[in-house]
Amino acid sequence: MISFGGGVPHDTCIPVAQIQAAFEKVISRLGAQAFRYGPTEGEPKLREFVATWLNRLELNARADQVLIVNGSQQALDLLGKVFIDPGSPVALERPTYLAALQAFSAYGPRYHETALGESGPDLDLLQNALSQGCRFFYTVPTFQNPSGVCYSRAHREEVARLLNDYATVLIEDDPYSQLYYNSTPPPQPLGAYGVARPIFLGTFSKMVAPGFRLGWIWSDYETLRHLVSVKQASDLCTGAFQQHLLVETLGQLDLDAHLAAVRAFYRKQRDDMAGYMERHLKGRLSWSVPKGGMFFWAALRNRSISARALLARCAQKGVAFADGSAFFADGGGTEFLRLNFTQVTREQMDQGLGIMAEEIDSFELEEDRS
Amino acid sequence: MISFGGGVPHDTCIPVAQIQAAFEKVISRLGAQAFRYGPTEGEPKLREFVATWLNRLELNARADQVLIVNGSQQALDLLGKVFIDPGSPVALERPTYLAALQAFSAYGPRYHETALGESGPDLDLLQNALSQGCRFFYTVPTFQNPSGVCYSRAHREEVARLLNDYATVLIEDDPYSQLYYNSTPPPQPLGAYGVARPIFLGTFSKMVAPGFRLGWIWSDYETLRHLVSVKQASDLCTGAFQQHLLVETLGQLDLDAHLAAVRAFYRKQRDDMAGYMERHLKGRLSWSVPKGGMFFWAALRNRSISARALLARCAQKGVAFADGSAFFADGGGTEFLRLNFTQVTREQMDQGLGIMAEEIDSFELEEDRS
Repeated sequence: MISFGGGVPHDTCIPVAQIQAAFEKVISRLGAQAFRYGPTEGEPKLREFVATWLNRLELNARADQVLIVNGSQQALDLLGKVFIDPGSPVALERPTYLAALQAFSAYGPRYHETALGESGPDLDLLQNALSQGCRFFYTVPTFQNPSGVCYSRAHREEVARLLNDYATVLIEDDPYSQLYYNSTPPPQPLGAYGVARPIFLGTFSKMVAPGFRLGWIWSDYETLRHLVSVKQASDLCTGAFQQHLLVETLGQLDLDAHLAAVRAFYRKQRDDMAGYMERHLKGRLSWSVPKGGMFFWAALRNRSISARALLARCAQKGVAFADGSAFFADGGGTEFLRLNFTQVTREQMDQGLGIMAEEIDSFELEEDRS
Repeated sequence: MISFGGGVPHDTCIPVAQIQAAFEKVISRLGAQAFRYGPTEGEPKLREFVATWLNRLELNARADQVLIVNGSQQALDLLGKVFIDPGSPVALERPTYLAALQAFSAYGPRYHETALGESGPDLDLLQNALSQGCRFFYTVPTFQNPSGVCYSRAHREEVARLLNDYATVLIEDDPYSQLYYNSTPPPQPLGAYGVARPIFLGTFSKMVAPGFRLGWIWSDYETLRHLVSVKQASDLCTGAFQQHLLVETLGQLDLDAHLAAVRAFYRKQRDDMAGYMERHLKGRLSWSVPKGGMFFWAALRNRSISARALLARCAQKGVAFADGSAFFADGGGTEFLRLNFTQVTREQMDQGLGIMAEEIDSFELEEDRS
């Protein structure tokens, strides 16, 4: 199977040597103590690392406002449990992150979707949503998943102003801000634009490795206490051992150099993918080349074909991608596809996108005949 | 602080050398692949290990009926999400495991408590509860936490019969069956007594190490599919890396010998604790010596003293234990205390239990004066 479906870091971007050195340090420093239960809030040193990291992003964070979670997916679940009662209105981007829909939907919210443009959400729609008393606005403002949109500074300012006007909680999810492929980094987090009630989710999955399942929530202290008690009932604590190991790995790693190397690797992947997209899919799909993140977001030109039907055929030929409609709360967006470029080889791009082109054409041939 | 409060394995019972050897094997075998996302269900080899383990316990398990979770606390949360709607009746032991109450309560059930006797639950009360249409009976039948009760074979048979009469799901939680201190192991799991709808929760926290946060749910395949989708929305997957590491550790370890050594260590701890309990607390508390698990469950003889008030005074003198009322769904049981014996030294037992005796006496002195 040639898969453009997931969103998985490439193996070469995982700092195995540093993890090995870190393991030796953890064992020699802590021995059996490394394998105890840990505090529900997370290991103090990891919480401190996160606070320092957030300060670098111009968020004014303290370590006691940080909760370590079992991957940022758990953050979404805990936030759903804390903020959503059945029927609660919540604001989302359209499209939005599929797994956030999965997490929130368990708690029965009423979704208000705000269409995304090239530089951010439609502000009138957002204002309209917030005026309904939304519990929060969930957003991935920097290289959004699936759309790749990165809010402009102007849009960040406007969104921050609207959130404050309606005293709405911001839930900002940031897996991708360090994966930028232009020479300049993206703007600071939306939460750094004077938002009164910011919550910020981060993950080590893209920065270091997904297999640890370590992410975090930063929020005001009161909300954090609530999240901690919900987390305790959910899984007691995140594994102390993997937290110790990650802390030591971060100590072994020149993180800036590591992230620069990761960016260089993925930039090349993106550029290769852009070339093969152009070669095989021009005229069949429309897209723009993403400036960061892990995905091309593309729309079928011929709206009588659905991405789901195309996926079914491609899968039979051994090619997978993500059906874009899964990223819409109301099941719309049937013309969209999400294509991951971080794991596929050049050969797979060439072959896989070629097969997609053939399958799109075969739909059109059938249309012409009928 | 001298703590009889937690339920934490002793550091000497953690197989650090085998974990070290296992880490080398994981890295040399898998390299960066060890740090990828894993399947939501868990790593295949770990699921197979669990199925084999369950078969040894006379549960007829297949690997595809096993879900690896982030500690068995997460199992309780996922089961609550799947089985409990607001107001759903569920049956529990009285007392029951505190953290199960925390997990289930988030989903708003109506609790039916069944009093525990020395060899199991009151069968009339259990029948009465099940006749109310309970969604499940949650039980820790083997060295229960907090009471230490181990259901007799006869009781297991009767409980199984009642569950089948009312077509009630059994949720059997088994952290302690391998921590038995008599020469013969406890009876087989309750689920092995012909229960039609068994769900069985286990954990590696007491068998290997708590810091990995690895446990499992075994259920019928259909329930498992439901649990998997709920787990996916909750945290995507349990960390693949720690699962690889645990699988290799289990391969390095002679598990039977390891468990025998752990039992010998805790048996000595229990016997020491029993001696100091006798020395300091005879006449002040009543208890029976546990045949397995990690706790003494004791009741204040003088019912005008509450364990909570006693705890407040002891904490000021640097001694902690668990207030037993936390293990009652209705907040009763104010005379009970739970005392952990797995981590304290002999000196701490002597000193800590001595301080408890003094504080109990100081309450009685005040009573006499007033």
